[in-house]
Amino acid sequence: MNDREMQTIESLHSIIRNAFAELKLPSYPAELYQPISYTLSLGGKRLRPFLLLAATDMFEGNLNEAIHPALAIELFHNFTLLHDDLMDQAPLRRGKETVYKKWNSNIAILAGDTMFALANRQMMLTRVDAIPQLLELLNVTAAEVCEGQQFDMNFETRSDVTLAEYMEMIRLKTAVLLACSLKTGAVIAGASQRDADILYHFGINIGIAFQLMDDLLDLYSQEEKFGKVKGGDILEGKKTFLYLKALELAGSDKEELKLLYQSKDLSKEDKISEVRSHFDRLRTRDATILEIHLYWKAAKDTLNNLSLPEERKTILLSYCEDLMVREI
Amino acid sequence: MNDREMQTIESLHSIIRNAFAELKLPSYPAELYQPISYTLSLGGKRLRPFLLLAATDMFEGNLNEAIHPALAIELFHNFTLLHDDLMDQAPLRRGKETVYKKWNSNIAILAGDTMFALANRQMMLTRVDAIPQLLELLNVTAAEVCEGQQFDMNFETRSDVTLAEYMEMIRLKTAVLLACSLKTGAVIAGASQRDADILYHFGINIGIAFQLMDDLLDLYSQEEKFGKVKGGDILEGKKTFLYLKALELAGSDKEELKLLYQSKDLSKEDKISEVRSHFDRLRTRDATILEIHLYWKAAKDTLNNLSLPEERKTILLSYCEDLMVREI
Repeated sequence: MNDREMQTIESLHSIIRNAFAELKLPSYPAELYQPISYTLSLGGKRLRPFLLLAATDMFEGNLNEAIHPALAIELFHNFTLLHDDLMDQAPLRRGKETVYKKWNSNIAILAGDTMFALANRQMMLTRVDAIPQLLELLNVTAAEVCEGQQFDMNFETRSDVTLAEYMEMIRLKTAVLLACSLKTGAVIAGASQRDADILYHFGINIGIAFQLMDDLLDLYSQEEKFGKVKGGDILEGKKTFLYLKALELAGSDKEELKLLYQSKDLSKEDKISEVRSHFDRLRTRDATILEIHLYWKAAKDTLNNLSLPEERKTILLSYCEDLMVREI
Repeated sequence: MNDREMQTIESLHSIIRNAFAELKLPSYPAELYQPISYTLSLGGKRLRPFLLLAATDMFEGNLNEAIHPALAIELFHNFTLLHDDLMDQAPLRRGKETVYKKWNSNIAILAGDTMFALANRQMMLTRVDAIPQLLELLNVTAAEVCEGQQFDMNFETRSDVTLAEYMEMIRLKTAVLLACSLKTGAVIAGASQRDADILYHFGINIGIAFQLMDDLLDLYSQEEKFGKVKGGDILEGKKTFLYLKALELAGSDKEELKLLYQSKDLSKEDKISEVRSHFDRLRTRDATILEIHLYWKAAKDTLNNLSLPEERKTILLSYCEDLMVREI
């Protein structure tokens, strides 16, 4: 089991870069495939393909059988971003114009649909006996991601969203796809169903932790992010973990915070600073960091149950830990 | 081979009705699944599921293994209608409000995406050894249908569309899904690859014939169709077979017809009647009927190559013939 040398974080990233460089898309009709190339060229962390390949490598699977599924997951993810950006009317993605802005809404719809079909096809370029399970997993996950996006849109116009509802929304919208990536990698490697499910649960926990981290960094980031306003979630009145946790902690001041959060009368700076002073008083930041640590610890504990020697878990753990502690 | 009694057109329709009645969708989030139920409840001919089941039955396959794939094809088809209606800003579908009108654009996008995922899942509820081929076929077809829709949208703003380009567009937008339905049914029944491909080509030919029939009936229908204006395609300036064929036949009057077709100065009645008098003079109606007959004949000839006794082809042939001669 320990004979085979493991990949490094850098070697896995290099496999992913090469796979994208070699991905051939049709060129015709250009109006359909150019936006897809453009979207894929915007890059990003390639978190999901990385998790998939790392999972295959953990179980000493054949990485060649995991490369196309890794592309599949990223194609699928980018399809959801393309449609989400249109639904949310977001002008920028990774500092560049979103597809519906650069082209138009119809092209964003249709290019997204096509990417979903391409994702399903890429997922099938693997061990033939794994295809039914992998396709079922991808499409169950796809419906869940849509449900998550629907809940997220519903929350925009609701004033009674609970923290529990929020946690379920981010599980669906974000966490299940990380879980799906990891489980896919494990299945390709021929891991036991039990081990594949353990990785799935690991993915749910890190997915939730990552999303809570995003919520935290929107307000408390030390770095300036290109194209992002610090406190942007507050300005949009987004029901984030910070806000919903603050409401929970607020006691009798709850209504005051609700009114403030919905208010449109204040200047941007004043709104952010007033909400932030509520958060400070309620120690919302600490409560959020605690919650992140709980999910991260749960993730690590889950991994203890894997039937693998510790050294085969290190790449995945150190990669996730790097993402986890990047700024807090 | 002739022992097993074949289904009738009515018994196949009844299987489809029961399958839809038994299809269980999640109920939550309601904003996502209600539009899907609504769309499916609008009915329609269920042409694609019928073709799929008829193909399975032709080869004496197990219809129980074909029912979920038949639902898959109709879910997929309705997903494309949902997105097409949004892209085309069509207010009505089968005389009822379209989803983006009744709810909103975001719900139409997301409900469509979910239907595509559900379609893939339904397609997998069949013989496990057929899954890789069927999923590949469905998703290749999906990308082709998107390409067809993109060409169709491109044609709206182009004045130099050729008849050959139009034929390729309707092959992609319409015919490949009928072909996919038939081939899927054949594969499920364990037909030879050759026979499955023959049915695919039959589907392409009837798909094109049906679309040309639609183009013809838009102007020359004997019946009044609920919610449809006779000559609607002319009013929209749609580049249909009738129009592109007329241009081909027009010779030196070509530019005159082009200008007339794009004109926005005439009353609705005058525009239709003036275009129609060009068509009459050029015998466009006869040319279209001839083309339909050629595709229908090609379809029937294709079917002669199937390694099946004639009596096993009769249901499919008589069903298609009924659709074919419904009005001309």
